Amino acid sequence: MGLVVQKYGGSSVADAEGIKRVAKRIVEAKKNGNQVVVVVSAMGDTTDELIDLAEQVSPMPAGREFDMLLTAGERISMALLAMAIKNLGHEAQSFTGSQAGVITDSVHNKARIIDVTPGRIRTALDEGNIAIVAGFQGVSQDKKDITTLGRGGSDTTAVALAAALDAEVCEIYTDVDGVFTADPRVVKKARKIDWISFEDMLELAASGSKVLLHRCVEYARRYNIPIHVRSSFSGLQGTWVSSDPIEQGEQQVEQAIISGVAHDTSEAKITVVGVPDKPGEAASIFRAIADAEINIDMVVQNVSAAATGLTDISFTLPKTEGRKAIDALERGKTAIGYDSLRYDDQIGKISLVGAGMKTNPGVTASFFEALSDAGVNIELISTSEIRISVVTRADDVPEAVRAVHSAFGLDSESDEAVVYGGTGR
Amino acid sequence: MGLVVQKYGGSSVADAEGIKRVAKRIVEAKKNGNQVVVVVSAMGDTTDELIDLAEQVSPMPAGREFDMLLTAGERISMALLAMAIKNLGHEAQSFTGSQAGVITDSVHNKARIIDVTPGRIRTALDEGNIAIVAGFQGVSQDKKDITTLGRGGSDTTAVALAAALDAEVCEIYTDVDGVFTADPRVVKKARKIDWISFEDMLELAASGSKVLLHRCVEYARRYNIPIHVRSSFSGLQGTWVSSDPIEQGEQQVEQAIISGVAHDTSEAKITVVGVPDKPGEAASIFRAIADAEINIDMVVQNVSAAATGLTDISFTLPKTEGRKAIDALERGKTAIGYDSLRYDDQIGKISLVGAGMKTNPGVTASFFEALSDAGVNIELISTSEIRISVVTRADDVPEAVRAVHSAFGLDSESDEAVVYGGTGR
Repeated sequence: MGLVVQKYGGSSVADAEGIKRVAKRIVEAKKNGNQVVVVVSAMGDTTDELIDLAEQVSPMPAGREFDMLLTAGERISMALLAMAIKNLGHEAQSFTGSQAGVITDSVHNKARIIDVTPGRIRTALDEGNIAIVAGFQGVSQDKKDITTLGRGGSDTTAVALAAALDAEVCEIYTDVDGVFTADPRVVKKARKIDWISFEDMLELAASGSKVLLHRCVEYARRYNIPIHVRSSFSGLQGTWVSSDPIEQGEQQVEQAIISGVAHDTSEAKITVVGVPDKPGEAASIFRAIADAEINIDMVVQNVSAAATGLTDISFTLPKTEGRKAIDALERGKTAIGYDSLRYDDQIGKISLVGAGMKTNPGVTASFFEALSDAGVNIELISTSEIRISVVTRADDVPEAVRAVHSAFGLDSESDEAVVYGGTGR
Repeated sequence: MGLVVQKYGGSSVADAEGIKRVAKRIVEAKKNGNQVVVVVSAMGDTTDELIDLAEQVSPMPAGREFDMLLTAGERISMALLAMAIKNLGHEAQSFTGSQAGVITDSVHNKARIIDVTPGRIRTALDEGNIAIVAGFQGVSQDKKDITTLGRGGSDTTAVALAAALDAEVCEIYTDVDGVFTADPRVVKKARKIDWISFEDMLELAASGSKVLLHRCVEYARRYNIPIHVRSSFSGLQGTWVSSDPIEQGEQQVEQAIISGVAHDTSEAKITVVGVPDKPGEAASIFRAIADAEINIDMVVQNVSAAATGLTDISFTLPKTEGRKAIDALERGKTAIGYDSLRYDDQIGKISLVGAGMKTNPGVTASFFEALSDAGVNIELISTSEIRISVVTRADDVPEAVRAVHSAFGLDSESDEAVVYGGTGR
């Protein structure tokens, strides 16, 4: 008998009907001979409604109390889900994050899981129950206060429980069919990916793909827990994320050269103009940014113009942090020594991800050709071993994504798919 | 420095504005030099909405999961209240029933408090915090499952915490000004009671007064915790419930002969007709009722008609239990041996409560005279040492309550008030 962890997001349990539908699905997994642990998010808009209430009461809600408030959402959905399962004649028990043994640090609103001690879950399973666990929440190791894991935290709860319980698979149920080669809202011909490696998935998540969050994939890779991302509205196979390719029929799914194209229009670009081109300059800029607790993404420095001895340094960061970063740099102007700042929030980032690019030297050239053919101007370039990212005008992003997706044979009806080894993806 | 426990009901924290208003009130108590512990119910209709959701998902929700669901309500209100207090510049921490050390038995939906171990509350207070505690909930001693205390449970939480923390007073804030000599919706001239003994309050609660529940008063009497029932919408003094009369100015409030008139139209009457008048008959009837787990209220047996050797036994019980009781008696018809059953749910109960009736022999006569003058027919009579109750037609209840209230000088502008020693009540 296998042990399966399933996670259902808020859109899957948005109302009583959704909860009953999900309950049937869970019971199916149990009937198939599995021990089943279910991690559930808050229903539909519950979390947003609670945040709204908090803002009405206090402009700056305290972290500890904010977490206490938000965790009410999963408490509701998990109890209702357990009731719905029992109503189908199967035993179920619901557990808060604390009861399930999800131990975190004390950083409220974005706590990190330190340990998982699922003794009560194990007992419930051994007694024949389906265990329902509140996603997104834990209890702090030192103070025993309720914590939340931040955005996408329920996925992390599911993967962490799967690791602690040595589950065969962690199934992430959502409102889409899986991970696609591009955002289907932008690229109509985007294809569902059958299998993707942890590494490629990590790069996609870091580049703007929203199906799985970076932290959750990282956790799964560390403990080698296969993730199966699939729709709670259909019975279709979704996308497997794991270290080794899955079997499909008689064949093993091949490693794709290119896994997909991600894009992100949530970032802004700051250019620090006229920086003396000498050691320590970049360090002083990014120390000022780090001291303001701002996370940055891409960093690019142009070659200095020899005549002036000055250079420009550009970096991207979430738009929401823009004001804070400009303030920090302006405060440090004398110390850093630069001419001026340029702030631009009309940018977009397009990233091509695939482990195959390590061994296929033509990929970078094809990528730039596709952008050029589509008339898209490139403003910044940044690469990793298995990713190429460019920054363009935000308006150019949809066309750029479609052009690149097509050029690499990722379109669902394109013959070129074969060229890049993309069968079965 | 004194320690005060305050309890706010759902109507006092129905929305963000209510929460902010209550927060100010709590901060006032803190500024007055008290350590403050606040017990809070779920906001407004939250509990009803959760019950509605549960019914949509399952016709017979399991107790454990139902409790897990309902306790989300207080989690929301307590976190918001703590935020609102912190926003006023004071320190506050919220605690679930479990965190506050409210230990109960395992009877879900109507658990009883076994013990209160408020170590975390004590620490929070010592560190200068206002402690906000979720009402209505606890954790079971054996299984560590979340439990709820049933209707009015937040009042019991407040009194139990007050006892465990050795508080000076337990203030119960509600949407009325205190306990009245009768229900003000029925008797316009009803007066707020300044002080009432635990004993009289217990009888009023048992007779249909809804301001405080019987269980909460019982708990307060056992640990001798003074209760102050008052409005969260005004600054007025409310009603003190305690063992010894309170001081008012230079004078001690006198013990009233009559505390008030309560009424109850939630009961039905069952008459078992033609019961053999011999030992053991009543026992067999009430054993059948008890086996069906039905609580009954009044029991009256008429004198047997000597000629037949048969008698009638009547009793009252909650209307909601009527069907179940009739079924139980019909199943036992042969064993018990009776002619027929009469079921009547158009009855009402009027009770006069006051310790003074022990030493004032005229009270019973005046009571019946008042009912007679109002043309109200009496169907059953039952008395305790400090209470007289009668059953009448439900339609007669408002008129009967007004007549009795007036006859005993309880009306707010009546001169007769003095006659019955009712100054200051």
